[in-house]
Amino acid sequence: MWDVVIRNTGDKPRTISAFSFVEFSFSHIASDNQNHQMSLYSAGTSYQDGVIEYDLFYNTNDFEGYYYLASTFSPDSYDGQRDSFLGLYRDESNPIAVEKGQCSNHTQTCYNHCGSLHKQFVIAPGEEVRFAYVLGIGKGNGERLRQKYQDLTEVDAAFDAIKAHWNERCAKFQVKSPNEGLDTMLNTWTLYQAETCVVWSRFASFIEVGGRTGLGYRDTAQDAMAVPHSAPAMTRKRIVDLLRGQVKAGYGLHLFDPDWFDPEKADVEPSKSPTVVPTPSDEDKIHGIADTCSDDHLWLVPTICRYVMETGETDFFDEVIPYADGGNATVYEHMKAALNFTDEHVGATGIAKGLRADWNDCLNLGGGESSMVAFLHYWALQDFVDLARNRGELDDVAYYQQMAQKVQDACETHLWDEDGGWYIRGITKNGDKVGTSKQTEGKVHLESNTWAVVSGAVSEERGKKAMDAVDEYLYSDFGLHLNAPSFATPNDDIGFVTRVYQA
Amino acid sequence: MWDVVIRNTGDKPRTISAFSFVEFSFSHIASDNQNHQMSLYSAGTSYQDGVIEYDLFYNTNDFEGYYYLASTFSPDSYDGQRDSFLGLYRDESNPIAVEKGQCSNHTQTCYNHCGSLHKQFVIAPGEEVRFAYVLGIGKGNGERLRQKYQDLTEVDAAFDAIKAHWNERCAKFQVKSPNEGLDTMLNTWTLYQAETCVVWSRFASFIEVGGRTGLGYRDTAQDAMAVPHSAPAMTRKRIVDLLRGQVKAGYGLHLFDPDWFDPEKADVEPSKSPTVVPTPSDEDKIHGIADTCSDDHLWLVPTICRYVMETGETDFFDEVIPYADGGNATVYEHMKAALNFTDEHVGATGIAKGLRADWNDCLNLGGGESSMVAFLHYWALQDFVDLARNRGELDDVAYYQQMAQKVQDACETHLWDEDGGWYIRGITKNGDKVGTSKQTEGKVHLESNTWAVVSGAVSEERGKKAMDAVDEYLYSDFGLHLNAPSFATPNDDIGFVTRVYQA
Repeated sequence: MWDVVIRNTGDKPRTISAFSFVEFSFSHIASDNQNHQMSLYSAGTSYQDGVIEYDLFYNTNDFEGYYYLASTFSPDSYDGQRDSFLGLYRDESNPIAVEKGQCSNHTQTCYNHCGSLHKQFVIAPGEEVRFAYVLGIGKGNGERLRQKYQDLTEVDAAFDAIKAHWNERCAKFQVKSPNEGLDTMLNTWTLYQAETCVVWSRFASFIEVGGRTGLGYRDTAQDAMAVPHSAPAMTRKRIVDLLRGQVKAGYGLHLFDPDWFDPEKADVEPSKSPTVVPTPSDEDKIHGIADTCSDDHLWLVPTICRYVMETGETDFFDEVIPYADGGNATVYEHMKAALNFTDEHVGATGIAKGLRADWNDCLNLGGGESSMVAFLHYWALQDFVDLARNRGELDDVAYYQQMAQKVQDACETHLWDEDGGWYIRGITKNGDKVGTSKQTEGKVHLESNTWAVVSGAVSEERGKKAMDAVDEYLYSDFGLHLNAPSFATPNDDIGFVTRVYQA
Repeated sequence: MWDVVIRNTGDKPRTISAFSFVEFSFSHIASDNQNHQMSLYSAGTSYQDGVIEYDLFYNTNDFEGYYYLASTFSPDSYDGQRDSFLGLYRDESNPIAVEKGQCSNHTQTCYNHCGSLHKQFVIAPGEEVRFAYVLGIGKGNGERLRQKYQDLTEVDAAFDAIKAHWNERCAKFQVKSPNEGLDTMLNTWTLYQAETCVVWSRFASFIEVGGRTGLGYRDTAQDAMAVPHSAPAMTRKRIVDLLRGQVKAGYGLHLFDPDWFDPEKADVEPSKSPTVVPTPSDEDKIHGIADTCSDDHLWLVPTICRYVMETGETDFFDEVIPYADGGNATVYEHMKAALNFTDEHVGATGIAKGLRADWNDCLNLGGGESSMVAFLHYWALQDFVDLARNRGELDDVAYYQQMAQKVQDACETHLWDEDGGWYIRGITKNGDKVGTSKQTEGKVHLESNTWAVVSGAVSEERGKKAMDAVDEYLYSDFGLHLNAPSFATPNDDIGFVTRVYQA
C-alpha cells in the first residue's frame, strides 16, 4: 500500500496528476518481460471500476493466479499494458503517459503489463489531497480492498498494525550498548533480516537468476537460530522442515522444497507447464555424499537447543519426525545423527572433511579437511552435551564429551600455524595446508580464526593471537576480507575460491 | 568479424573515432549482468597488445572458457568493463567513452564486462580507411587472429570463404517459380534456417529464458528432414542422436542432451558449479508416458527415409543403435518401434492419443485424440511401406499397409465435420469434439486440415473443402491463424491453448 499526501505549500492553486507504475510478476519481471514462449503469451490485464487486474492464465488458482492494483480515488485514466504507458522506444525515465498527462485506457492480453492509475487534482494554496494505492494478489480482492480503504482511517489502521507487529517482535529483546550503531543492528536490523529470511528463505531469491528456490539448509538453520524469542512458531516450523530434510546418514539436503517432505502437501499435484520440463523423482530429491556440504547439518543442533531453551518445550526432543530418505527418529536422535555424521567423515588428520563445500560454498576441499567445520562441530557438541546432561542421558554425555575432546585435540594439533600465529583454513586432500604463513595467496582466513574463538575450542592465548592476525591481515575500511592476499592462481584442490575474487 | 570501411566523401579532412562495443556471454547476457552470485564474481577482462580477453574463471577449459575481441588497428584506447565504457546511469544510447572521444583503458575482474577498442582516424578528402574487428573464443586466439587479419586480404578471403560455403550448399537445390518470394524462401531462407537449426537446435535458445537447452525431438527431426542434400553428414549425426534418444517403447525423449547418450561423451564429467544444483540421474533422463508428446517419434521415420533416398546409404537401415533406456536395435527396427507406439496408443475411436501434447505444445489432450497425429502417422506409414517394399520385407509391407488403412478409415469416419466441411482438431478424453461447426471458440483449426491434405489420407473432394474452410476462417493479412475464433474459455480437457492467445 502507498499512502500518498500532496500538499500545496505555495500561494497559487496547483493542478497536479498522480500516476502509479507497477509491474506484475510471479517470478522475475526482467525475465518475464523477455519470455517469448511463456509469460508474454499467457498473461493479461483488465480494468474495471478503478481496479487493474492481472491474470496469469497458466495458473489456475484464483488466489495465486491474480494480481491487482487499486486506488482509493476514481481514476481519470489507466494503463494495463507496459508499452502503452511508457510508449515505444521509451523507458521509465520518460513515460509517454506522464508527458501527455493521461494514460491510454488500454488493457491487453499477451505482451508485457503494468498497473498505472492516474488522477488529476487541483489543490488550493495550503490544502492537501490524500489517497492510497493498494497492490496485492487474489481474484476479486482489488475491488474489496478498494472499497475498504476509501475510508482513509483504514489506511492508518493498516500501517499502525504493521508497526505494532514489528514493535512487538523487536521489544522481545533489546540491548543498550555504548555503540549506537551496534544497538540499531541488534535491536532492529538483524531481527528484521532473520525473520524475513525465516519466512521467505530462497523462495524470493534472484541468485542464479531464479534457478534455485527452496530452503537453503544452513541458511535456514542460522536464520531460525536468531528468532526463537520473537517468532517461536515459525522457528519451530522451520526446524521441523529441516529435520524432514535430513537423511538417515545424518547430513542435510543442501537445497530442498519443504513441501516435498510435508505429509500434508506431498500429494498435491504441482501445476504443470505446457512445455516438457523434467520433474525430479522422489529418489532424485535426495542428493548423495558428493553434493553434501560439510557444515549444513551441524547448524541445526544449536538451533534446536536454542529454540527449546527459549520456549521451554523440552518435549520437542522426543517428537518423532521422519528422515527424508525414510525411517523415523526423535528430534534427539536426529541431532545425534548430525553429530555422528561429521565424526564419521574426517580426513587423514582427524579433522572434519570439507566435502562439496563448507560454510564457504567456494571452498571445495572434498576429501580434504576444513578447520571451520571442525570448530563448528565442537561448538555444536557443547550445546548437545549440555542438553544430554539436562535430560540425564549420562552415556551420551560421556560419549559426546569424548567426541568433543577428540575434535579439540585434532584442532590444536593440526590447525595452529605456529610461525604465523593463526589457525589455518584447512588441508587439501593431498595434505597441503591452506592458509599458512608460507603462502603468498590465501595466507590468512577469517572463518577458521573466528570459529576457533567462537567455538571455545582453543586456548585464550592462541585465540587472541588469531584475532590479532585477523586485524593485521584482513581489516579494511570496507569490512573484513574473507582471506588475504586474494587467491589469483586457480587450484581445484582448494576450490572455486581460487577462481573468484581476483579483483 | 566486422569489416569496416570509412570514406571521406567531402572536401575537407575529417577526424573520426571508431569504437566497438560487445558484451561477452556464455549463456544470456541480460541474465549474466544481473547474476549476483555467479557471473558477476567469476569473470574478468584483461588487455594486451590490441586484444581484450574475457575469462570466465569457472570454466577451466582453455577453449570454451575464453572470449576475445581484437582489432586490426593498434587501439588508441580500450575498455573491458561495461560501466567504464557506458558510464554510470547511462546506457548504450549515450556511452561516456564516445562522448569523451576515448575509452578509460580499464579492465576488471568481477562486475560486468564489454569489449571496446577505439581508434581515431584523420581521413583526407576522397580517402578511406579500412579495418576489422575480430570476435571469437579460445585462449590466445585473439593474438593469433589479430596478426593474421592485419593483412586485409585475409579478411576478404574469410568473407569469400563463408559466401562460398553457403553458395555451395544453396546450389544443391534451386527452384524457379512464377513467384519470386517463394523462390527466395525455398532457395535461401528455409535452407539457411534449417541448417542453422540442425547445428544449434535449442543450445542457443532463449525460450523460457535459457531454461531448456538440448535437442527438441520433433524440431530436430523436422530440421534434419530439410537438409540431407546440403548437409548429409550433419543430418546423419542428428538422426543418430535422435535414435539414441528414443526409448524401447518407441517414443522419443522430448528434450534431451545428445551427449547423455553419446558413447564417446557419456563418461566426460560435466564441469561442476560451486553451488549445489541437482544433476539428473541416468534414470531421470528418461521421461515416462506422462511427458511423451504424441508426434515426436513419428517425424523421424520420414526424415530417415529422405536421408537415405538422398544419399543412397541403404546400409544405414541395418546399423545397430542403442535405445535410450537400453537394448540395441537396427535403424529399421527403431522405425518400426516408432510406428508401433502410435498404433498402440489410440483413444476410444481408434485415433492416435494426444498425450502430453502433439505438434501444438499447448493442445494437451492426454487420453483424448489428435487428428494431426493420426494424419502424421498415416504419412510416416506411407514412407515406411515404400521402404519395406524396397527392402523386400513383404510381411512388413502387408502389416504396415494394414495399419495405414486402419488409420485412414478411422480418420475419415471420425474426423470429418460434415456440417462445417472440414476436419476437426481432435476429441477430448470425454468424447467432446474439438473444432466443429457447432463451436463458437476453436471452430476451425489449421493443423488438422493441412495434415489431412499433406498426409494423402483423405479424398480430394474433402481435402479441397477443408482448404476452402482454412481460407474462409483462418486467413488474415498477417498470416493464417492456428484456429479461429480464438479460445477464450479455459478448458483443461483441451489444454493450455485455451489459456493463451486471448488477444
